[in-house]
Amino acid sequence: METSDMVATVERYVEAFEKQDLQMIREMYSADAHLEDPVGSEARNGIEAVCEFYEGAFNMGAKLELTGSPRCAGNSVAFPFRVKMPGMAIEVIDVFEFNHEGKVHNMRAYWGPDNMLK
Amino acid sequence: METSDMVATVERYVEAFEKQDLQMIREMYSADAHLEDPVGSEARNGIEAVCEFYEGAFNMGAKLELTGSPRCAGNSVAFPFRVKMPGMAIEVIDVFEFNHEGKVHNMRAYWGPDNMLK
Repeated sequence: METSDMVATVERYVEAFEKQDLQMIREMYSADAHLEDPVGSEARNGIEAVCEFYEGAFNMGAKLELTGSPRCAGNSVAFPFRVKMPGMAIEVIDVFEFNHEGKVHNMRAYWGPDNMLK
Repeated sequence: METSDMVATVERYVEAFEKQDLQMIREMYSADAHLEDPVGSEARNGIEAVCEFYEGAFNMGAKLELTGSPRCAGNSVAFPFRVKMPGMAIEVIDVFEFNHEGKVHNMRAYWGPDNMLK
C-alpha cells in the first residue's frame, strides 16, 4: 500500500470527525475490522461494532487535531493527535493496520488517564 | 504494570542514547525480546540481536528527543520522538509492549522515508 494512501486515510479520519460523517468511517474500515480503544480494553469486532463506537464519539462532540506527522511503515500508520471534547482533551496515538484492499482492519488507540488535559 | 514505570522506561531509553549506554538497553529488554524497526522489516529476535541493533544506532551517533507525551495503555506505551544523527533526523513513533516482569518484550518502530527531515 502506498504511503500517500495511508496518509490520505488519516486525513479523511480527521475530516470524518469534523463533519461527524459516519459513512466516511464505514468506508475506511473492512467488514471484519477490530478496534481496541484504549489498548487493553475489550476489542470491538466487526464494522457494526466499530461504527457504534464512532457514533458515541461523534455524539460527545469529539474533534481531532494532528499533533505530529503520520508515520507509515509496512502496512501500518501511527499518528499522534489530540481529541477535543467539550471541557476536555486527550493526547492519543492511533495505529491503523491496513488489509490488502487498503481498508483498516485493525485499529489500536494508545492513551491513558495521564494523557487527559485539563 | 504502573504507568509511572512505563514512562520511566521511556525516559531511560532516551538517556541510554544520550550516554550511548548499551547496558541500560540490555536491562530494559527481556531475553526473548522482539524488535521490528521499522515495522514491516525483518524482526530481530532475542536480546543479543536487539543489542546489536542499538550498538549500530549508537555508532551512528543517534540521539532521541521526545516530541510529545508517552501514551500508556494496557501493558504498552507509544511515544513520538525525533531521532537525530549527524546530517539527518527522522520522526518516529515507538511502541513498547511489556511482559509481566516489566521488561520490554516487543518493540515496534513506525517510520518511513516521508518522516526523514532534511
